[in-house]
Amino acid sequence: MPLEADTIATLKKVWMSAPQMALASTEQKNAALKTLAAAIRSSAAKVVEANKRDLKRASDDGRGGAFVERLTLTPARIEAMAKSVEEVAALADPVGNVIEKWRRPNGLEIAKVRVPLGVIAIIYESRPNVTIDAGALGFKAGNAIVLRGGKEALESNARLADLIGSSLEQHGLNLDAVTLIRNPDREVIQILKRHPELIDLIIPRGGKALKEALEGSAVPLLPHFDGLCHTYVDRGADLKMAEEICFNAKCSRPSVCNAMENLLVHSAVADAILPPLAARMKSAGVELRGDERTRRIVRDARPASDEDWDTEYLDLILSVKIVDSIDEAIAFIGRHGSHLADAIVTDDAKAAARFEREVDSATVYVNASTRFTDGFEFGFGAETGISTNRLHARGPMGLNELTTYKYVIRGSGQVRL
Amino acid sequence: MPLEADTIATLKKVWMSAPQMALASTEQKNAALKTLAAAIRSSAAKVVEANKRDLKRASDDGRGGAFVERLTLTPARIEAMAKSVEEVAALADPVGNVIEKWRRPNGLEIAKVRVPLGVIAIIYESRPNVTIDAGALGFKAGNAIVLRGGKEALESNARLADLIGSSLEQHGLNLDAVTLIRNPDREVIQILKRHPELIDLIIPRGGKALKEALEGSAVPLLPHFDGLCHTYVDRGADLKMAEEICFNAKCSRPSVCNAMENLLVHSAVADAILPPLAARMKSAGVELRGDERTRRIVRDARPASDEDWDTEYLDLILSVKIVDSIDEAIAFIGRHGSHLADAIVTDDAKAAARFEREVDSATVYVNASTRFTDGFEFGFGAETGISTNRLHARGPMGLNELTTYKYVIRGSGQVRL
Repeated sequence: MPLEADTIATLKKVWMSAPQMALASTEQKNAALKTLAAAIRSSAAKVVEANKRDLKRASDDGRGGAFVERLTLTPARIEAMAKSVEEVAALADPVGNVIEKWRRPNGLEIAKVRVPLGVIAIIYESRPNVTIDAGALGFKAGNAIVLRGGKEALESNARLADLIGSSLEQHGLNLDAVTLIRNPDREVIQILKRHPELIDLIIPRGGKALKEALEGSAVPLLPHFDGLCHTYVDRGADLKMAEEICFNAKCSRPSVCNAMENLLVHSAVADAILPPLAARMKSAGVELRGDERTRRIVRDARPASDEDWDTEYLDLILSVKIVDSIDEAIAFIGRHGSHLADAIVTDDAKAAARFEREVDSATVYVNASTRFTDGFEFGFGAETGISTNRLHARGPMGLNELTTYKYVIRGSGQVRL
Repeated sequence: MPLEADTIATLKKVWMSAPQMALASTEQKNAALKTLAAAIRSSAAKVVEANKRDLKRASDDGRGGAFVERLTLTPARIEAMAKSVEEVAALADPVGNVIEKWRRPNGLEIAKVRVPLGVIAIIYESRPNVTIDAGALGFKAGNAIVLRGGKEALESNARLADLIGSSLEQHGLNLDAVTLIRNPDREVIQILKRHPELIDLIIPRGGKALKEALEGSAVPLLPHFDGLCHTYVDRGADLKMAEEICFNAKCSRPSVCNAMENLLVHSAVADAILPPLAARMKSAGVELRGDERTRRIVRDARPASDEDWDTEYLDLILSVKIVDSIDEAIAFIGRHGSHLADAIVTDDAKAAARFEREVDSATVYVNASTRFTDGFEFGFGAETGISTNRLHARGPMGLNELTTYKYVIRGSGQVRL
């Protein structure tokens, strides 16, 4: 069958399974999740075997480093997947939750009730654990899920998706409700984005190439894209605290979207904080790039180019700029940030309040590291990405963000006058 | 200037005004709204004059009937606009509302705070009052607004938009924050939909042609499109109540999206309810179309074609079908409805509960008319359309639906381990 017809046939099966998933009971979904956790454990050897085939192909293709690291499934990582599925089972079911309820003067009772979104397609890259994490969260929220992983992880993903399917089936749920698209052709993404009548939402988790591939999507997207995060050390900062926060924001995990890329320092405290902070950063292997004034203090920093302020390094590189006011800092963040996570360090309540109000980012911090922008750190018990969108969901997404709502209105014969 | 460059220049001005609008105080916005209400009243004569020019053009073009009716501004309608602006001023400002707030074990305080969406483009057709209603609601929620009305109402819309602009300006707000695009070229819509970097959301309020014009939009849409609503009279219905609800749902205003188009009747009560209901419908001028079993009871009903079940008449036409179970009714609604508003009439609690749970529509009614699907009837104090979307907002949209949120996180030096 040609690719388009084949893909549409698969999507139709998922779409047909959505109403049953939406009405599945919490018990049924949790039982399937528990079965899945057990299946992941008992099939660990087979999963590792499949993963080895993926790793072999990657090594044949000359891949290495971080790529192979992300692709690799160890027994510990497989156990972590099983645990995370058990954690999803333990989370409260969002479906049917009454978000708000009120009574109108005419006696109508209006309830705003959480319901599943429908069919969600999740497009991701080389980490095979996303197959389990996204699949489990998606169906816990009552959705039917289309999974599209990277072709380099196909064998691992296929094995894991089989486990989800058989777990659903064992509890009377339709195995099509979580379907991995196994055809590695890149054109599949182009097909997915053309069918809003079969997919309600696409959640892309990837880099620039994926972003470009999804341009012009007819299906709504909740993208998890750029993270160009700032920390601003205000003149009113506790400098020791500022040093800890900056160091954590840059160095605790530089490859992730909530790591700091640009540091702004108020000129009144630059002389005091930059030397010790720079020394500590350098000893952790961070390359510093600075504006002219920064370089007068940190003499061995490289000059920062215009491009540097707009670059998400995802690496041990930090651009540093000295500003003369909070206004300048806020304006700079508005111009160069990606509106994901930005922080101020200050003990000045007025400065904190202005920063909170005027910085328009999904997560705005006062005296804490931007690294907390994460579903688990927020207490959601799960994460399906961090939305860089303004509509529907913004920032870390948990189970609720995979739902929509409907209004249920109970009357006693009311008619509209 | 060519159209595209000209339109982009306009959009950029609106976009530049958005941050100031987002930070405007409630007092400032309300003062501008009160000034606007007064200006609408004091300029009523000029607005009527501008409207007369629109009406003259419409009559020259041979337009009449409902079209002219919608376009016409009478002194009473102008007063109604002024009143609605005052009502918007009286509504609570959603911006800055704390939706949720919690504390993490590490001491971080996380607040989910409502903030404006940004730049919203509203595309509408012949009713000039939308200029005022959408403009006023949009800026009350802290957004910058691009208005694109129908070309037939251009003079009226321009006069009204001028009043909004001068009211904003009088209170220190940027008049670009509510901008009517005055170039009547249809290509403008094609330009708007190509610029997600300048527009956060398009709210289209119109028919099929507008829907088609917006296909492939790169800017997210919150459409207000089809309404194919059902009422199902269950075997457990109070038949007198059912008659009142059905009559209201069909006849109180047949031209709107929440009017009933398809009536489903359980076979156990069809003989009892259809004759009196049909007689009443017919005396109100409703044309009945029925399936075979309906036509055995309502002998002069026309046969309903397959197409009838999928047609939003927006007129005094009703398709009637007899079903043998609530399952059949729910499945029929899933297949033929537009998921906007559907009702059951029943005194059977089990049937009501099943209908509430299993019908996946934005508004699901038990024992009330679908005509209540409306922002004012829901108590929102305002309405910017009824979303037929599943993402972001579903059903009637008020002020809250014109906002997004951000997380404000307050710490005391927390870093991520």
